[in-house]
Amino acid sequence: MIDFPYLSNICRTTSSKIIMVVVDGLGGMRHPKYGMSELEAAKIPALDTLASGSSCGVTIPVLPGITPGSGPGHMALFGYNPVKYLLGRGVLEGMGIGANIGPSDVAARGNFCRIDSEGKILDRRAGRLDSSECKRLVELLNRIELDKVQFEVYPVMDYRFVLVLRGEGISPSITETDPQVEGELPNKSEPLPGLPNMTANAINEFTQKATGVLKGAGSEANGVLLRGFSGLPSIPQFGASYGLTPAAIAAYPMYRGLAQLVGMDVISCESTFESELRVLKANYIGKFDYFFIHYKLADSAGEDGDFEMKIKKLEEFDAHLECITALDPEVLVVCGDHATPSYTSSHSWHPVPFLIKSQYSEGAAGASFSENSCRLGSVGSINAEQLMLSVLAHAGKLNKFGP
Amino acid sequence: MIDFPYLSNICRTTSSKIIMVVVDGLGGMRHPKYGMSELEAAKIPALDTLASGSSCGVTIPVLPGITPGSGPGHMALFGYNPVKYLLGRGVLEGMGIGANIGPSDVAARGNFCRIDSEGKILDRRAGRLDSSECKRLVELLNRIELDKVQFEVYPVMDYRFVLVLRGEGISPSITETDPQVEGELPNKSEPLPGLPNMTANAINEFTQKATGVLKGAGSEANGVLLRGFSGLPSIPQFGASYGLTPAAIAAYPMYRGLAQLVGMDVISCESTFESELRVLKANYIGKFDYFFIHYKLADSAGEDGDFEMKIKKLEEFDAHLECITALDPEVLVVCGDHATPSYTSSHSWHPVPFLIKSQYSEGAAGASFSENSCRLGSVGSINAEQLMLSVLAHAGKLNKFGP
Repeated sequence: MIDFPYLSNICRTTSSKIIMVVVDGLGGMRHPKYGMSELEAAKIPALDTLASGSSCGVTIPVLPGITPGSGPGHMALFGYNPVKYLLGRGVLEGMGIGANIGPSDVAARGNFCRIDSEGKILDRRAGRLDSSECKRLVELLNRIELDKVQFEVYPVMDYRFVLVLRGEGISPSITETDPQVEGELPNKSEPLPGLPNMTANAINEFTQKATGVLKGAGSEANGVLLRGFSGLPSIPQFGASYGLTPAAIAAYPMYRGLAQLVGMDVISCESTFESELRVLKANYIGKFDYFFIHYKLADSAGEDGDFEMKIKKLEEFDAHLECITALDPEVLVVCGDHATPSYTSSHSWHPVPFLIKSQYSEGAAGASFSENSCRLGSVGSINAEQLMLSVLAHAGKLNKFGP
Repeated sequence: MIDFPYLSNICRTTSSKIIMVVVDGLGGMRHPKYGMSELEAAKIPALDTLASGSSCGVTIPVLPGITPGSGPGHMALFGYNPVKYLLGRGVLEGMGIGANIGPSDVAARGNFCRIDSEGKILDRRAGRLDSSECKRLVELLNRIELDKVQFEVYPVMDYRFVLVLRGEGISPSITETDPQVEGELPNKSEPLPGLPNMTANAINEFTQKATGVLKGAGSEANGVLLRGFSGLPSIPQFGASYGLTPAAIAAYPMYRGLAQLVGMDVISCESTFESELRVLKANYIGKFDYFFIHYKLADSAGEDGDFEMKIKKLEEFDAHLECITALDPEVLVVCGDHATPSYTSSHSWHPVPFLIKSQYSEGAAGASFSENSCRLGSVGSINAEQLMLSVLAHAGKLNKFGP
């Protein structure tokens, strides 16, 4: 939670409702070939109109120049210091699929892979195994028995799975078996210096038994790789910290997992943004006064390096906006967890535009929803971790600080 | 080093090269008499063109309103917290002239001064003694013997010298003898409360014996003043921290000293910027992937309160730029350690413009290289300590942070 010790003293619960839409990979940079960013090139009349009547700015997700993963990107938007509350990959993936991870459990991200007769990795993704095959193989893995440790394996998507270890003395402080390159042997897991080797031993035993089980399975996959060993961090709850009753609506597993981790009620929905919007509408009247809703497709197009597709996905988002504005929330926030410029085909370090629309907004005629326009907006450039404070302020949910 | 504990996890060594030109005292403020800053008044077509195709911004050296010395100014540009890694003047001057300062030694900045018959200071700089005379007097000082402490005196320039104390139990925690005003007696050095008085005693003994030695030397100088007692701080190495192989090219001693202190290879050059440029060119192909190169003259003109001269020195720098751009580095940075407005005739607190040119730069048509134009650039206003992160990002030398 943001480093402001008097937060709980000044938060005020009111009837006003906040909808915070996180457009994944929202921001971009000027693509040298087109002389514009995707937001500048997109026809997004609803966002532009909204921006001209909103308090606009840009968020720096972690630090200038630092490119965040989705975990730190979202944690910062929720008001958590993304360095202090860095989540492990195992936990993040596990939470996303609703895996049952207890406070002393350890989760790991697993890949089904293909290895050669010497045990060297031929394909870290086993030909990008499909999800149904993944499910079948996970059932086989769940039949394994380990000497001292309980575990559960969950299918994720394609070639990915999550392993959750349970038992007394389990520790995430062990090395990964996935070397993240091909042509090499998987690593043996080892405890970090000076720590007991029980967990590492269990991982090595699991890996070996998995290879045995997969041998007779008639699959492209014949091995497993594990990384991102991590436990649940102790995290202040979002709702209690801000005096909010928060709900999360996200089609993609990882974002549901993040929301659950910070203590939001995750409302289930199908795997499209349209479904998210229907769920938002259905739950708008009721106990929740904060809704986190996640739009994934801008990021995917950016990751693919597809300038035109990212524009298209932003335009589609724009067309959906009226479903949200029709609810007439006291505060509407459109923001992003990080930039994903199609020029870099990856997440990037660039500041991410946002808008906050409420009765307290200060817009500017002619403003548009783009990196350059928002940078010059009334809020200016802030750390993403501070955004929630501005959001609460715009909702009338913060009292004066100090006498 | 910047407070980001995962830096070493995300730094990536690549073949791309970075040239970072520090224009000392680069920034300014609008001079009331001329209605413009020096950068605005100067004809600097090369910088303006570069700026229009670069990611621009301004750096805040320490905090808004805080005027830094050259030490904090440079430490921040190199990514070090300028408060945490504050260097003593003795160390700074000593490093600059290649003085041999060991990890437990104490260095002090010395002035040759003129005192009257009562011992009061008539002139803190002894008529701005010339450098050859300084050298001669330093030889005399080096013949002094102290009871318990070894020492070495080094000439610096004009009336300035450096004293390095060596021996068991030496401590920099003593008071200065230089009162930094004229008409008063020099102070006796004393240990800070509760600390042993050995070092202060040695300093007082040295001061007394120096007065004796100088009496017969037939010089304008007949006394010494000491300040800035300091030892070498423990500093994370620049190269290892960023995964870089750094070189420093600086005509002026203090900047070579700073670079050496953070672990850069200091390449020797003569005392002009032209010589620095020749050395840069001669060393560009080879092991180094980061070059710090220092341009001093803008600061000197600002310190002299000479608006026209500062413009001239900026224009001369501009004319030299093509020697650097001709090397076609993957990243070119032009930045400054602090502002030196001719209106204040001194360092100042004003934010300092910078530009970062690389394939990832985002410029703006019509941008120029000035305080006001850069402030509106795509990077905006950042702490100087964060600049290196943006530089590394523009060099493609940072991986994603977190899953």
